[in-house]
Amino acid sequence: MAKLSVREKIVAAAAQRFHALGYNACGVQEIVDAAGVPKGSFYNYFKAKELLAREVLNNYWGAARLDILADKSLAPLERLRQHFEHIASRYKKAGFQNGCLVTKFINEVSNLTPQLHLELETELGRWTALVAETIRDGQADGSISAAIDADQTARFLIEGWGGATGAMKLSASRGPIDDFLAVAFGIVLQARTPQQRRKARA
Amino acid sequence: MAKLSVREKIVAAAAQRFHALGYNACGVQEIVDAAGVPKGSFYNYFKAKELLAREVLNNYWGAARLDILADKSLAPLERLRQHFEHIASRYKKAGFQNGCLVTKFINEVSNLTPQLHLELETELGRWTALVAETIRDGQADGSISAAIDADQTARFLIEGWGGATGAMKLSASRGPIDDFLAVAFGIVLQARTPQQRRKARA
Repeated sequence: MAKLSVREKIVAAAAQRFHALGYNACGVQEIVDAAGVPKGSFYNYFKAKELLAREVLNNYWGAARLDILADKSLAPLERLRQHFEHIASRYKKAGFQNGCLVTKFINEVSNLTPQLHLELETELGRWTALVAETIRDGQADGSISAAIDADQTARFLIEGWGGATGAMKLSASRGPIDDFLAVAFGIVLQARTPQQRRKARA
Repeated sequence: MAKLSVREKIVAAAAQRFHALGYNACGVQEIVDAAGVPKGSFYNYFKAKELLAREVLNNYWGAARLDILADKSLAPLERLRQHFEHIASRYKKAGFQNGCLVTKFINEVSNLTPQLHLELETELGRWTALVAETIRDGQADGSISAAIDADQTARFLIEGWGGATGAMKLSASRGPIDDFLAVAFGIVLQARTPQQRRKARA
């Protein structure tokens, strides 16, 4: 592997320390110590901690492979499945103990800058829109229940995923991810229509 | 209202500051400053910050009214609905901006003491068991779908609730709670059986 530049060292160390401490409790000194670079060099690359956090979050979203959701060569359910399994594979590398950086930042939103707050909302909105569009594609080809509201279900699933990553971190296991996938794919996306429900009650 | 004792002032301030900063970033000095009491008095009441955090969490669980779930005089769906609505009413008091203290602590579990980690898991387990039992009661009286696994669904719902509280905090609105309740009660708890699903496909 090529040797990391000072800038790359700072970004890698920041990702690790933000994950461990959150945004607020992780100062520039903490990051340069972890990166093993002199503090003075930090400001050659980043004018403020916020700009570094924006780059770390940006990389994090990139690694989440939202592009899988937009890959129309895959069946809609397959896009959703591969996307969530891809994220799960990233958690696995950390023994399911790191949790999700986005969830971590959301839980300290009152300590974030307005710009970071805005970017979290924007990226979550983009993610939600892609999941909703995939649900609609599945409804169009009959593989996903027509009984559900695509936008509301997309929000529900993404929030549920965030919650599952917390439980995963607490238990240091994949179990909560498996619960999420079983109920999301087996129950929510296959919901019965009101007509089927009335028939079941009759 | 009766004047708060020094001890009560410390507990109330700690609940507020833990909510804002999390466990790790909130030191004893922060708490006594917020309580307006001298630091020396802290150790007359609590031998360590951990013991205070345990009391705060204990109060928090008490305020969540898990007892509603065990109230067999209510129909199972009504127990679930009233329980979640009760928690939502507590969030509302803070303008939906505080989020959930349990979720906050879960997201910094690597910085918690082993005892706090254990108590979080124990209380979440107790909550999950009560939700699962309520689901089973609903399955027995036909008001909740027989197609779902009660334990897995209980875990899914509680994790989903945790995720919804993050989104609620981010948006400072009740919207994510309403999405959660709509999908949980309208879709998940009313899931169709495999037989109904086969019929729908036929």
